[in-house]
Amino acid sequence: MDTIVKGKAVEVVIGYDRPTVLIGERINPSGKKKLAQALRDGDLDQVRKEAVNQVAAGADILDVNVVTSGVDEVAMLPKAVAAILEVVDVPLCLDVNDPAALPAALKLIPGKAVINSVTGEEKSLTTVLPLVKEYGAAVVGLTMDEKGIPKDAATRFAIAERIVSRADALGIPANDIIMDCLCMSVGADDRAAVATLDAVEMVRQRLGVNQTLGASNISFGLPDRELINHVFLGAAIRAGVTCPTVDAAKVRPTVLALDLVMGRDRFARRFLTDYRARSAA
Amino acid sequence: MDTIVKGKAVEVVIGYDRPTVLIGERINPSGKKKLAQALRDGDLDQVRKEAVNQVAAGADILDVNVVTSGVDEVAMLPKAVAAILEVVDVPLCLDVNDPAALPAALKLIPGKAVINSVTGEEKSLTTVLPLVKEYGAAVVGLTMDEKGIPKDAATRFAIAERIVSRADALGIPANDIIMDCLCMSVGADDRAAVATLDAVEMVRQRLGVNQTLGASNISFGLPDRELINHVFLGAAIRAGVTCPTVDAAKVRPTVLALDLVMGRDRFARRFLTDYRARSAA
Repeated sequence: MDTIVKGKAVEVVIGYDRPTVLIGERINPSGKKKLAQALRDGDLDQVRKEAVNQVAAGADILDVNVVTSGVDEVAMLPKAVAAILEVVDVPLCLDVNDPAALPAALKLIPGKAVINSVTGEEKSLTTVLPLVKEYGAAVVGLTMDEKGIPKDAATRFAIAERIVSRADALGIPANDIIMDCLCMSVGADDRAAVATLDAVEMVRQRLGVNQTLGASNISFGLPDRELINHVFLGAAIRAGVTCPTVDAAKVRPTVLALDLVMGRDRFARRFLTDYRARSAA
Repeated sequence: MDTIVKGKAVEVVIGYDRPTVLIGERINPSGKKKLAQALRDGDLDQVRKEAVNQVAAGADILDVNVVTSGVDEVAMLPKAVAAILEVVDVPLCLDVNDPAALPAALKLIPGKAVINSVTGEEKSLTTVLPLVKEYGAAVVGLTMDEKGIPKDAATRFAIAERIVSRADALGIPANDIIMDCLCMSVGADDRAAVATLDAVEMVRQRLGVNQTLGASNISFGLPDRELINHVFLGAAIRAGVTCPTVDAAKVRPTVLALDLVMGRDRFARRFLTDYRARSAA
């Protein structure tokens, strides 16, 4: 099924058998001291710059996260969104800690945003889903609940099913849900990636909803992270991830090659166009 | 199911959920002028060198092909095999044009070799399978027949099924068959890789036999071939290829990363060992 999200001037369609959609992950102060400090200083130039760079690098949607110590998320999110809307036209994915930050930001966005995220926790379901409905947004569902992230695929799938069913009860269609089966590091648990990939495959086969994944966690604590991230992204996309959350600058050539071998790039046009641009650069 | 092949001193077990086995593809004069000329001159030093290099680079099995113009395959194959057995201990995969080249070469090999290949063609089935039986070898089955390589997955699967069933009638067990669903370039047909991947998945799910693939054909005629080859290899291994035919020197780190994210590398031991060796080099 197709999920449609809209920015100021750009509509993005996410679906199986379509080119993979990239959600740019870089507007996030976690682990980025400079961006964290800029947000504390109320300086949004960094945010504008990351937005422009990610879109130039091929991000189709931008994830926006302003959660860091010393920053009032509820006050900051609308400011960051306003700054981003000044410089790019793509749809936004509002990645919040506190759902109270959402309404003011959602009101600023012309189009259809993605709310990131709802979990299987009762509190999250009852707080976030009504906002999804009210603003006609799409929503990222995380396969975790009060007990954390299940180790096995079947329990993650059960949470995914619950999110879809609770959304349905509020009149939110399944194609407005983007599932995130979550991944942990294979450095800590060598079966971690298998659990994620199996959950992704179950969600694709039984629920059919679109799926994202912040695939870079997979290599946390290991060397040669980019190699691991790239091969995992390939396995995840083959399993059913349609809109991974990634650094577009790092993974776009890999994703275009994947789309090519998965028959989603008619006449290899996107791959060749990107290759020529990279060669000319 | 597990396929066991044996070299002079090395036994290799190929199976799903085991580390991916690499069949080294470099002992093949096709496209290699220097090796082709050496074979015409009866000089086997190149062959020995490639054998040593591929095993050092991590090849578990070596494919041996001496087919080139001006070389008598039937006379040359045993000589090449003898030369290789002087320098390495791994199992060999005899990749022949003319099955008449097989007996003399098979007689030289202590252990259990792989015959490459039998197709779905009647002539091939009746010529090659009795040799497989007689020498207790394993065999690569190509999903093609009198009409060539089918474009669609279902017809390739039907050929795979026929090969398994004809082998069974001669008392050759399914675990002595390694299927090759064949891949063509996505440069010529953008659905080519999908047909291959779908066939691989069908063979895994319905026949359960091990599978190889000469994955580098996929990028023929396109730029940035290594990128395409690597991502395709990931999709192919996730789909069910257990022993790809590759240049081990080029793909080993990628394959080890894939095995890691697919839960086939306990404590990331193989990946980390290889990483340290690469870093020290």
